[in-house]
Amino acid sequence: MATLPLMDDRTAPSDSRAVFDDIRTRRQTDYVNNFWRALAHDPALLRATWERLNAVMAPGALDPLVKELIYIAVSTANGCGYCVHSHTAAARAKGMTPDQHAELLAVIGMASQTNALATALQVSVDDQFKA
Amino acid sequence: MATLPLMDDRTAPSDSRAVFDDIRTRRQTDYVNNFWRALAHDPALLRATWERLNAVMAPGALDPLVKELIYIAVSTANGCGYCVHSHTAAARAKGMTPDQHAELLAVIGMASQTNALATALQVSVDDQFKA
Amino acid sequence: MATLPLMDDRTAPSDSRAVFDDIRTRRQTDYVNNFWRALAHDPALLRATWERLNAVMAPGALDPLVKELIYIAVSTANGCGYCVHSHTAAARAKGMTPDQHAELLAVIGMASQTNALATALQVSVDDQFKA
Amino acid sequence: MATLPLMDDRTAPSDSRAVFDDIRTRRQTDYVNNFWRALAHDPALLRATWERLNAVMAPGALDPLVKELIYIAVSTANGCGYCVHSHTAAARAKGMTPDQHAELLAVIGMASQTNALATALQVSVDDQFKA
Amino acid sequence: MATLPLMDDRTAPSDSRAVFDDIRTRRQTDYVNNFWRALAHDPALLRATWERLNAVMAPGALDPLVKELIYIAVSTANGCGYCVHSHTAAARAKGMTPDQHAELLAVIGMASQTNALATALQVSVDDQFKA
Amino acid sequence: MATLPLMDDRTAPSDSRAVFDDIRTRRQTDYVNNFWRALAHDPALLRATWERLNAVMAPGALDPLVKELIYIAVSTANGCGYCVHSHTAAARAKGMTPDQHAELLAVIGMASQTNALATALQVSVDDQFKA
Repeated sequence: MATLPLMDDRTAPSDSRAVFDDIRTRRQTDYVNNFWRALAHDPALLRATWERLNAVMAPGALDPLVKELIYIAVSTANGCGYCVHSHTAAARAKGMTPDQHAELLAVIGMASQTNALATALQVSVDDQFKA
Repeated sequence: MATLPLMDDRTAPSDSRAVFDDIRTRRQTDYVNNFWRALAHDPALLRATWERLNAVMAPGALDPLVKELIYIAVSTANGCGYCVHSHTAAARAKGMTPDQHAELLAVIGMASQTNALATALQVSVDDQFKA
Repeated sequence: MATLPLMDDRTAPSDSRAVFDDIRTRRQTDYVNNFWRALAHDPALLRATWERLNAVMAPGALDPLVKELIYIAVSTANGCGYCVHSHTAAARAKGMTPDQHAELLAVIGMASQTNALATALQVSVDDQFKA
Repeated sequence: MATLPLMDDRTAPSDSRAVFDDIRTRRQTDYVNNFWRALAHDPALLRATWERLNAVMAPGALDPLVKELIYIAVSTANGCGYCVHSHTAAARAKGMTPDQHAELLAVIGMASQTNALATALQVSVDDQFKA
Repeated sequence: MATLPLMDDRTAPSDSRAVFDDIRTRRQTDYVNNFWRALAHDPALLRATWERLNAVMAPGALDPLVKELIYIAVSTANGCGYCVHSHTAAARAKGMTPDQHAELLAVIGMASQTNALATALQVSVDDQFKA
Repeated sequence: MATLPLMDDRTAPSDSRAVFDDIRTRRQTDYVNNFWRALAHDPALLRATWERLNAVMAPGALDPLVKELIYIAVSTANGCGYCVHSHTAAARAKGMTPDQHAELLAVIGMASQTNALATALQVSVDDQFKA
């Protein structure tokens, strides 16, 4: 599957190859995963996405593992199978334990349920929740 | 708005009033927010939802604040305005700082963007991401 | 709110007014709700939507009330507040009892939860579920 | 695929095996489908989900088949392929006829269309639809 | 996969075969793609969907290629992999260039990001944006 | 509503005020809409979002109006009311005619319907649609 063929070092434009190299360096692996290889058709989009991802996911007020958990949560709610797979792998690489994974799943399930109930009930926002 | 009128201590069935009391006790506040007051039409659903929420959001392998951040992320992706409001307030009550909130927003925005790109590209899952 | 002003009998094009009249006749009420008044800017889309709705929601292998419950379920999952409101009202007009409404909410909540869990787990479809 | 390996009677923790046994007993089949086998990594989540599902889907004010139709509708709108497959199979097992399936699809399609139109038009909720 | 077996000229009811023939004539190809073959179980839904699609996608105030781009955008946001694949192919057949595809992806990604931010911030609509 | 108070020139940090000024200059208006005023709590996110938006929406292989139509389509499918309002206004400012708006709505409605049908049917992707 894919709506565009995956590129590799031979077929990618040189600007995209440079991003592949940056991915390899920062991640300390030879492997460039399929998402980046599909984006490589558009070097500008590839670079903008890769650089912004690094800025956003860097350590800051939130721990990098917490950011991965949030990423999995969003990807699940958006129904992106690729993203659920890749960020679950990334979270494990950053130390997510089986117990943390289990609690993440429980929270995602709970939130999805109360989201649906609040929407079906069309509950008005309480004044004290407004900024 | 609302597809059912909000109940209060006078109008709620006694089984729902008992849940209201439990909410007040556990949260140490007199205030019962609209979500529970709308659910109160069905005491069984109200109780099941409230008890499961407490079990899921309790401290465990993940910090309660981290669980609230995940809840906000799911609620945002599901487009539940009520839930975004109530869980942002809950996260603040549990100590979320402005910097943490800002980083949460950035991760949610980033994930939403790459979710859409991966879906538009229909990227196949890399073998190494599979369990 | 609205991205287009709501039309009425004075401002709507004559082809849309004819649909308004048909709505009134079939529903035996003078009231034309806001959805149709917003669609009236495009008489062709208004007519196509109204006629298809009548065909789809007519009694058939499924009871009209069951169809309204399904409509509420889809509208909730799609996060359409207007639709949740209007079809909950329609379901009540077709006889939905408070107990039926409560069970509908419980099923919607349950499905939303297991949908999220199955997506977060990326479970493969069992062979025996395939047609 | 899957972000966690599917468990079976040999690999599942004993608390999860007990749920597998309950699934077999209640469903009168030896087969435990993949969803439960993936959830088995977390016996507490497995049991809570299975028990709540049985409570929610039991006969009540709504017929069990109607509940399955609603489940399919939510699963479709949430884009959960696994859930669409498993609950379509469940609906057939509970007697869904081809004509009922066809009408279900037509209602889901219709609702999805008008949901999108109401959202694109940002139609305000009519006062008479409010509870 | 599929929740219903795909039909072909031998297995489809005659009313559905007539639609297959119309698809072949209008598209000047012998190939009938899987979507229509799955819908063929319900000749009425097949015909209504096919005819409405032709009316909506015909040249008008918007160019047919622009309509395909919009179709891809909606299909991506709704997470419909089949639809993303089929309408990306259709857009290419109507002349979509690689540069246009790349810009389409960038806009879809950008919109998904700001959609999430606006929802997480629960920003009120500016008066001047209201019709 | 809003989960953060809207900022203005007095309350915004100076880095955010600089972005407000850039918005005013590029758009040739004094008005800074609520989305940017809510984002102003985080000058880095505000700047990154504003600059990327300008790059993505600039004239290129696709016309700026076409990009706005795509933006509306994504925002509708994601259920972002704020975004539907603001980009419908932007599209009008860029010359969207009532007929173009009407056709946009018809395509969004059609796509939403067939997205749901393809998902409910779980149709497999035709080989010829794969890149």
